[in-house]
Amino acid sequence: MSEGLKTTLTRRGLLGATAGGAALAGALGGRAMLTGGATGVATIAGVTAAQAAENANIAPGQLDEYYGFWSSGQTGELRILGVPSMRELMRVPVFNRCSATGWGQTNESIRIHQRTMTEKTKNYLAANGKKIHDNGDLHHVHMSYTEGKYDGQYIFMNDKANTRVARVRCDVMKCDAILEIPNAKAIHGMRPQKWPRSNYIFANGEDEAPLVNDGKTMGDTSTYVNVFTAVDTEKMEVAWQVLVTGNLDNCDADYEGKWAFSTSYNSEMGMNLADMTAAEMDHVVVFNIAEIEKAVAEGKYEELNGCKVLDGRKEAKSQFTRYIPVANNPHGCNMAPDKKHLCINGKLSPTVTVLDVTKFDALFEKPEAEVDLRSAVVAEPELGLGPLHTAFDGQGNAFTSLFLDSQVAKWNIEKAIAAYKGEQVDPIIEKVDVHYQPGHLKTSHGETLEADGKWMVVLCKFSKDRFLNVGPLKPENDQLFDISGDKMVLVHDGPTFAEPHDAIAVHASKMGNIRSAWDRNDPFWAETRKQAEADGVNIDEWADMVVRDKDDPTKVRVYMSSQAPSFSLESFTVNQDDEVTVIVTNLDDIDDLTHGFTLGNHGVAMEIAPQATASVTFKAAQPGVYWYYCQWFCHALHMEMRGRMFVEPKAS
Amino acid sequence: MSEGLKTTLTRRGLLGATAGGAALAGALGGRAMLTGGATGVATIAGVTAAQAAENANIAPGQLDEYYGFWSSGQTGELRILGVPSMRELMRVPVFNRCSATGWGQTNESIRIHQRTMTEKTKNYLAANGKKIHDNGDLHHVHMSYTEGKYDGQYIFMNDKANTRVARVRCDVMKCDAILEIPNAKAIHGMRPQKWPRSNYIFANGEDEAPLVNDGKTMGDTSTYVNVFTAVDTEKMEVAWQVLVTGNLDNCDADYEGKWAFSTSYNSEMGMNLADMTAAEMDHVVVFNIAEIEKAVAEGKYEELNGCKVLDGRKEAKSQFTRYIPVANNPHGCNMAPDKKHLCINGKLSPTVTVLDVTKFDALFEKPEAEVDLRSAVVAEPELGLGPLHTAFDGQGNAFTSLFLDSQVAKWNIEKAIAAYKGEQVDPIIEKVDVHYQPGHLKTSHGETLEADGKWMVVLCKFSKDRFLNVGPLKPENDQLFDISGDKMVLVHDGPTFAEPHDAIAVHASKMGNIRSAWDRNDPFWAETRKQAEADGVNIDEWADMVVRDKDDPTKVRVYMSSQAPSFSLESFTVNQDDEVTVIVTNLDDIDDLTHGFTLGNHGVAMEIAPQATASVTFKAAQPGVYWYYCQWFCHALHMEMRGRMFVEPKAS
Repeated sequence: MSEGLKTTLTRRGLLGATAGGAALAGALGGRAMLTGGATGVATIAGVTAAQAAENANIAPGQLDEYYGFWSSGQTGELRILGVPSMRELMRVPVFNRCSATGWGQTNESIRIHQRTMTEKTKNYLAANGKKIHDNGDLHHVHMSYTEGKYDGQYIFMNDKANTRVARVRCDVMKCDAILEIPNAKAIHGMRPQKWPRSNYIFANGEDEAPLVNDGKTMGDTSTYVNVFTAVDTEKMEVAWQVLVTGNLDNCDADYEGKWAFSTSYNSEMGMNLADMTAAEMDHVVVFNIAEIEKAVAEGKYEELNGCKVLDGRKEAKSQFTRYIPVANNPHGCNMAPDKKHLCINGKLSPTVTVLDVTKFDALFEKPEAEVDLRSAVVAEPELGLGPLHTAFDGQGNAFTSLFLDSQVAKWNIEKAIAAYKGEQVDPIIEKVDVHYQPGHLKTSHGETLEADGKWMVVLCKFSKDRFLNVGPLKPENDQLFDISGDKMVLVHDGPTFAEPHDAIAVHASKMGNIRSAWDRNDPFWAETRKQAEADGVNIDEWADMVVRDKDDPTKVRVYMSSQAPSFSLESFTVNQDDEVTVIVTNLDDIDDLTHGFTLGNHGVAMEIAPQATASVTFKAAQPGVYWYYCQWFCHALHMEMRGRMFVEPKAS
Repeated sequence: MSEGLKTTLTRRGLLGATAGGAALAGALGGRAMLTGGATGVATIAGVTAAQAAENANIAPGQLDEYYGFWSSGQTGELRILGVPSMRELMRVPVFNRCSATGWGQTNESIRIHQRTMTEKTKNYLAANGKKIHDNGDLHHVHMSYTEGKYDGQYIFMNDKANTRVARVRCDVMKCDAILEIPNAKAIHGMRPQKWPRSNYIFANGEDEAPLVNDGKTMGDTSTYVNVFTAVDTEKMEVAWQVLVTGNLDNCDADYEGKWAFSTSYNSEMGMNLADMTAAEMDHVVVFNIAEIEKAVAEGKYEELNGCKVLDGRKEAKSQFTRYIPVANNPHGCNMAPDKKHLCINGKLSPTVTVLDVTKFDALFEKPEAEVDLRSAVVAEPELGLGPLHTAFDGQGNAFTSLFLDSQVAKWNIEKAIAAYKGEQVDPIIEKVDVHYQPGHLKTSHGETLEADGKWMVVLCKFSKDRFLNVGPLKPENDQLFDISGDKMVLVHDGPTFAEPHDAIAVHASKMGNIRSAWDRNDPFWAETRKQAEADGVNIDEWADMVVRDKDDPTKVRVYMSSQAPSFSLESFTVNQDDEVTVIVTNLDDIDDLTHGFTLGNHGVAMEIAPQATASVTFKAAQPGVYWYYCQWFCHALHMEMRGRMFVEPKAS
């Protein structure tokens, strides 16, 4: 064990049994049952509980104080909730195929998917008869920052499944960019730069693979690398990449714009469970932004698949990275709003390792081998079993989720530092049960300089007996706590469909630029507009034209407008086997007056919100009459808002 | 105007302005704004409101009293909510493509989609490079009945977009059958038979089209027909179809198993808005089940695309149908739990027409031309503007949604009958504002003989200012009312993603047969099991075999088991361009211990719940190393639950 470790890491015996299979899960299940049910209710007692319940009560017609932006894990969408009501206000499709909005089917959304798609992915999709991936594993959501505070501009999110990062525009709450990241594999942890603004998104590659992954060195794990990526948030392109040692897990950034940091498990670079957990210690990787930017500016990178790649692996002994040893398989990586303390959550260790980021400069003053890498460690409180993530109240306290204990521990950072120095103080203030197996937990504005210590959501992976039984697949459980008082008070159990992996809460006052109708000049449908102009159609006014392509007579474009309760075209005619593109503009500009276009028996449907344009393309392969209709209830005569597509049969 | 109309239908001037476009919507928007905000709050006052709020409060750890089954309109999924907490407990994918569960991608779900797919749909999909439709417009959800009460067996639902009906098994809450209905177009209204049990699902075809829709008679609207379908609920096949006149909208069935009824607009068979709304009167179609079954048994049908088709159009003068005139463009069709009264909602008329179904026998005693078709009308109260649907409390009262007024009217059926007879009584008990433009509204068990008069949900199409602004696309609003007292008390505003079209509430005591783990012998993966047996693999035990097909060496089947935190296979190898099928069985049987299988950069992900088997097939088109991982958080070492697929490059 490293000399730098001052405390004894008491990895309880329980963990030794985990690798064997379901034994631990069984134990967890049993434990959870014992503590379940009445616990939550019992917690709510006395004046504090009543006040907390009142704080959380949003009566009909009242507005929530915070926007909650929620990831959805393998569902692939962004969710917007109201906090504290915990009501789902909107689903924003990102990596998933959305039946309602046509996301993944409209030309506008397919273009966003394809913009940065690698050749390899294009080839794979073509061989599988697909245009885009229609799934994702959206773990993390974070808002863009300006000077350490949320700025209401963008939400960023990752896709672990297909190695992507995406951006949602907050003015319209739609995804406007998806970036497939070359070279890296399985983007997991992801955070925006906090200072001076979010020029970068930092994106962790979790899975190791040959850098040139063409099948030629698959058996030689020495060719395997992991990749840390900085994404240019305006261009939504890769700014630079750094090769690293170990599987990158979660990441964060400081409040001075100097560092990014990633927890890293499997420093062993093992290929199976036993090897991945063999070593006593793994590490946190510290990325030196200035050194990296300097090297990039000086051209000291290799270009691979269009990306500027630097070597920051341990053996490269570079100034780009430092590997600070922490106990085996660390997980959460959380920068405190005090601008100073970084909390690394132990997962397999019962501890949180607290690093003082103001001590990181010293780590780069000499080569890595010559510095005390753990000199930045200022505390390492033992909190309980399975610490995964830590959140902050802005008043010096931290809240750590304990996966195995199904608890949250509230503790004081300064007391933990004092204890690490040898003082006889207990940093733990309180523990509460959660239900069950918590992952991420978040406090309102807790990842910004405006941490306000009002609310905490704990995203529990298991719900078991907390809700009516809905079959073998059960919801997860987002629990809301009022943390404004001395005690953490549970006020809401929120069942959620897979998987509420992460969340942030943003005060409504930050979100003043949200539109209720689109700007007709929005770039969202710029390419569609360009085609319309070439076709001599003005899509900003009533349009009812059917245009056959001059160069390819099998292509037909159908331009129509919608205005409740009518489409501009009562019918249109195409020929069998034509490639038909239907372009619809919603001329209504009334708040909430969204239209839709659904074409019967053609698997075609899309949303057209007020003042928007949307389009969809399909091959009219079967002759006959097919009705199209508006599927977004728009008017008392909504059902009569329909028309006919005639598909003329081929001459036989 | 028909002689049978006793009351004067005062179609207020406002409606005359609707066809012109957004004028009405603008007026609605304005009106809604005026009544919005404070109204809902003002309603909650006094002892009743406090009691109602208490009734609706489900504290953390407490269970809801009712399962709410919610449609999702164009989202295409079934939703399960808890009532009265209004929390979403589960999403059950049906017509949509689900990123999380792999619905629409797993072989098991594709088989369910393809089982009854018509040749025409197969051809269309093949020409468009697709295997299934990945969207739907799921309007209505209804549970199977036994003797007029919910029996907890199945949920049925329609897809208006692609003309389908589907079934969800309540023991596992998964869709096990999707039926594409030939001949009909755009299945809209859908209800189960209520007595003696739900042997049939009645399904309304809304859109008219040539019966043989091959493009040869598209211009001749006299060849256009509409089709009413009865689905055999056990076989999930078409039992019989009846040709009808007019666009079928909503439907229902009686409590004696004698009748089905459908509202029908556009009796004109018009092709555009003006023609569809030209006539003063449309009709309710009454279907005589015994006469239809007799004709089918006697072989007096025509067979078309495998369906037994009878002609029940007006001009056919059959004994299968009667056309009862009601005011133009009726919408909701609601049978009261008193077994006697059927409420037809006026939409463009401010009235609800109440029919006494015990008088329907008389309509069939002579040919249609010789009977007084409106002799079954026993009341026609004028309730307000835009009556869309009616629900019941089991105590003689009805609740009607008023779309244009953004209100719900509570009224007494017997008083309405008395008023129709000429007595000076006002049937209206109370009106409340809703927010805004309500469509369906439902009372707990209100469509069964166990109507309990406790809760009412009102599904509002617009939410406008009721929630934090989330962009041009806004949520809809499901409002929950406590109706157990004299007053309707609003207790919850529930934002919902498009479109909470319809809902039912089922008491938890009816749902005793829900499993928490699958039965290994479940038919869900029967075909997969058959293939495994042919491959000599026992999928009920630890399996780690890679089997190359004997007949087609480009096909590879990879059998693995999952048990937290491991897959049975640490890696497997295939050749470039192989068609790979991965079959995973979850051997864990612990409550809530679902696993997943996601294959990196391959757009492949699926759910495997406790004791389930699932499989997915793809072409391994690109050489290299790809990690697969478990995306359902299962264990402290969940992230380490992964393995590698090696794709060997083709010999060049």
